Order: sequence, then structure tokens, then C-alpha cells
Amino acid sequence: MTGTQLRSVVALLRMSPLDIGGDVGKMRDVFEELLGAIPLPEDVRTDAVDLGGVRTLKVTAGPDHGAGAVLFLHGGAYAFGSAATSANLAADVARRSGTTAYTVDYRLAPEHPFPAAVDDAVAAYRGLLDSGVPADRIALCGESSGGGLAVALLVALRDAGLPLPTSAAVLSPWTDLTQSGRSLRTKAAVDPTLTPEALAVRSRDYLAGADPRSPLASPLFADLRGLPPLLVQAGTHEILLDDALRLAAEAADADVAVTLQTFPNAPHVFQSFAAVLSPAATALDAVAAFLRTHLDQAAG
Amino acid sequence: MTGTQLRSVVALLRMSPLDIGGDVGKMRDVFEELLGAIPLPEDVRTDAVDLGGVRTLKVTAGPDHGAGAVLFLHGGAYAFGSAATSANLAADVARRSGTTAYTVDYRLAPEHPFPAAVDDAVAAYRGLLDSGVPADRIALCGESSGGGLAVALLVALRDAGLPLPTSAAVLSPWTDLTQSGRSLRTKAAVDPTLTPEALAVRSRDYLAGADPRSPLASPLFADLRGLPPLLVQAGTHEILLDDALRLAAEAADADVAVTLQTFPNAPHVFQSFAAVLSPAATALDAVAAFLRTHLDQAAG
Repeated sequence: MTGTQLRSVVALLRMSPLDIGGDVGKMRDVFEELLGAIPLPEDVRTDAVDLGGVRTLKVTAGPDHGAGAVLFLHGGAYAFGSAATSANLAADVARRSGTTAYTVDYRLAPEHPFPAAVDDAVAAYRGLLDSGVPADRIALCGESSGGGLAVALLVALRDAGLPLPTSAAVLSPWTDLTQSGRSLRTKAAVDPTLTPEALAVRSRDYLAGADPRSPLASPLFADLRGLPPLLVQAGTHEILLDDALRLAAEAADADVAVTLQTFPNAPHVFQSFAAVLSPAATALDAVAAFLRTHLDQAAG
Repeated sequence: MTGTQLRSVVALLRMSPLDIGGDVGKMRDVFEELLGAIPLPEDVRTDAVDLGGVRTLKVTAGPDHGAGAVLFLHGGAYAFGSAATSANLAADVARRSGTTAYTVDYRLAPEHPFPAAVDDAVAAYRGLLDSGVPADRIALCGESSGGGLAVALLVALRDAGLPLPTSAAVLSPWTDLTQSGRSLRTKAAVDPTLTPEALAVRSRDYLAGADPRSPLASPLFADLRGLPPLLVQAGTHEILLDDALRLAAEAADADVAVTLQTFPNAPHVFQSFAAVLSPAATALDAVAAFLRTHLDQAAG
């Protein structure tokens, strides 16, 4: 991994005013400011689209976007973030894969606790089907809490007997709200953005009394049989590393086609920094190739 | 996974006379007969080459083999197999990656217990360096016990302060001679080739009293820091699945660049059946692309 680039990004992250465990109102503003400050590239087009009663942002980048639809689930610990704050990353995935992304404005905690986010993700997926996009032209992508939510969505769709999307790529997914991963301890000193305490605050808000082992809140504990191919990416310098490793192991045990990729010394959702960090670009190229392969295979 | 192809291969494996836990002399004959019976493709050339006092078979396939050298470590539970029995798979990897493979005739147990195999692998690697191939033109590939041996070799090379190869691809690696993986129980009914009992026999022969947690016998328990990128592949219908999953997790925890790929319902080292099994061809293409990427990057 390119040491200088990575050290610069980590230094910036350590200086960031974002405190994931902080006051929701203040931190939402910080989140919007930080991520909203980065302008979208000129070739990116965004349109507000209602899918199944849920607001989404339809995002295309560049001339080619007919390879399929990517339902994108943003991060922010179920409390922050929005379709707008994720448009840059969603556009990057869309451009590299030649797809159209729909990034979902699912409801956030604490105002709307679990399972509101899952319900909205299911509704948006149903809405996409109802809009005429067949399941074999749909893939999922999610990052951080949105990565866990993507897996929960797959489980919910399978249980509802709905046609499943072709694949899902999850970046640094938060899959275990019981916080039992050993990396919460072993990687705490090297993780520049997340702390176990911050995750505990956000988990409490999201669960609002629900069992942290609920399969749709912590898909690590879900029955993963029958899920489509999963790509799981994580940095090795993040406290959620074990959430990724254990998701991969549980899915493999359940006979799922899993690809896991770990990136040495990289922080949580380092893919956001593809413009300045070459391993992030490599990782997003792998995401795009993975999504595209399964979309193309399904299309025959 | 292509159901019909896979069911045919599994049926053949279930009918095979090979009993991994059986009498060494008899089973060596069976191993040689089974694998020796498959003719090498016409474009494959093999030459006996001494590397550091260890016999190897230099294997090329097709016109392009200048991308680098792949030191290949065959399987056979440390008791069976040879450079000759692995020539077909080594040639397939060589052809797809445009490299020259050297498959190593390391000494076998019970006549030559641990650490003879590791010593021979180190000697062959040193011999390759001494023959004028620099480390940045070398990759490792190993399958089953040879996959564990490849990781042990990396650990031994790092500890010896030798220049490391560019990457290692390990297929269904046996990494834990304590046999503590849960898949030894949970996948026993669906694994057509291996049983925990057979592995226990071969492990006892190989260890000959050594601690099964010795890092160079069971690299799952080794310090994996500083290792080059690893590609780990496994089928989900093999009792050694957990050896692969846990190797990937331990390596990721040690900041190694890991790629793990699992193949639904596939048996142990299904890559051997690439001629008749399309997922096996897909897997070997991924092995070749991985080895090639890191050889090319190192070559700058």
C-alpha cells in the first residue's frame, strides 16, 4: 500500500471533527458539511427518485450506465449520512461498473430505530422491481452500517420469497451490533475514525431495546443460506475488521460464493478516498468488476 | 456453480479408491496411478531440475512463460504425491499465468517427518534464487498440504531474512494440524474426499511427535506479519474450509493483503478438474491473474 498517500489520509481522518459517538444533531451537520463539501465530478448526474415510497437519488456518471442498477446503502452508523452525502462514492461505483446507482435515503436513528432502515431498504428494492428493473439487472452495494444493511436486506428478501439481486459488495460492513469482534480491542489504537464507545452509542440508538443479535440488525447472526455472491472488503486498520472476516466465514460456511479482500493498514471505508489513494481505486475497480461480472452473467 | 458438472465430479471422487488415511505404500501407488493416468497436454514441457539439492520438475505450457517463476508445492497430506503427479495442475497454472512452474519433490512422511518438507521447500527456493531468478520474479502456489507448506515456507523465509516472493496462492490449504476447525465436523457429510480420521493419521505420521501447533507445521499458529499478498481459495464442501477461512482471518489481522474466495458446494482442490468444471477454470484464472499482477507490479 502506498505509504505516503495512506499516511496523509490517516492524518486527515485523525484531525476530523467527526465524532461518530457524538451528539446526533451536531454530527449530522458535520457529516453533511464534510462530505457535502466535495463537489461531484462534472459528468455526474443526480435525480431525486421515489422508490416504493422511499426517497432515493439516482446517480449516473459518464456515458455508460446501462449495465444494470446498483442499490446503494450509505454509511453513518444508522444515525448520519444521506443519499446526498453518499453520491460521490455511489457515482464512483456507478462509473467504474457502467451502472446506474440508486442511493437510498433510509430513515435514521434515534428518531427511527431498527427495523426502519431495513423496511426502507426492502421498500426501495421492491420499488425498483416495480419500476420495471428485473432482479437479474440489480446488484447491491453498501458501506459501513450500509454494508450490514445490504446483507440484512438480502436476508429479508430471501425470507420474503422475493427474487434476489445478482450480488452484493459490502465495504467495511458493520455486521455485529453485539460488538464481539476481537478487532474492537486489537485494532483500536490504529483505527483513526471509529471507537468501540462510539459504536456502542449508535448501536443503542438504533436498536432502541431490540436484541443486538437480531438477524436483520446484526446479519452476522442470520442464516445466510441462499444468498447471492458477496464481495467483502475491509482495511486491516479498522476496529470493524472482524465484522468483515466473520461475515465472510459465516457466509462461506453457508455455501455462499464469497470473495474477501483485505487492504493492509487501510482505515474504515478507505474506498472513499479513491481520488488520492491508489489502493482505494484498486479496491473500487474490484467492486466494479465483481458487480459487473454477476450482472453480465445473469443477463446471459 | 454448474450443478451437473459438479455432481459428476463429486460422484467420481466418492467412487475413488484413494483413502487418504490408508496404507502409505498402497495409497502412493493409487495416487500415482490416478493422477499419472491423466496425460499432460501436448504443449507441456517438463524437465528435471535440481534446485538447492532438491529434485523439482520445471514445467512450461504454451509459448509464453517469461512472466516469472512459480514454485509449486503439491498436495497429498505430506505422505503422497510428487512433482510428477502435480505436473498437470502446475502446468495449468503456468499456462494461465504465462509463467514457468517448478514443482518440488519435497521429502514425504512417515520416512521423512516434519520439518523435512519445510527444509526442502526452503532449499528449493534458495536454489531458485541462486540459479539467478530474483525474488521479485518468484511467486508461490500450493494445494492442500502444499498450501500449508507454502505459508510455512513464507514464514521460514521471513525468519531467515531472505527476500520474499511476490505473492502466494494457496488452494484448499491444510493449515491446522491440531484439527480444530469446526468444518471438520460440519462439512464431514458433504466432503467426498477427506475425513478427520484420515487427516489425523497423516498428521501423526508427519509430526512424528512434534507439537501440532508448531508454526512451520501449522502456519495458522504462526506470526504472519510481513508476508506478501495471499490468495486463499476453498470449496464450501470440504472439511478443510475452516483452515482456509481462519488463515485468511489471521493473515488479515496481521496486516497482510488477503484475498479469499470460496466456491459453493465445491470439494477439496476442485481446481484440479478445470478441464470439466467451469468454476474450477474460473478459480484458476483468478489464481493466474493474482500471481501475474504481483509479479508484474514487482517488476515495475
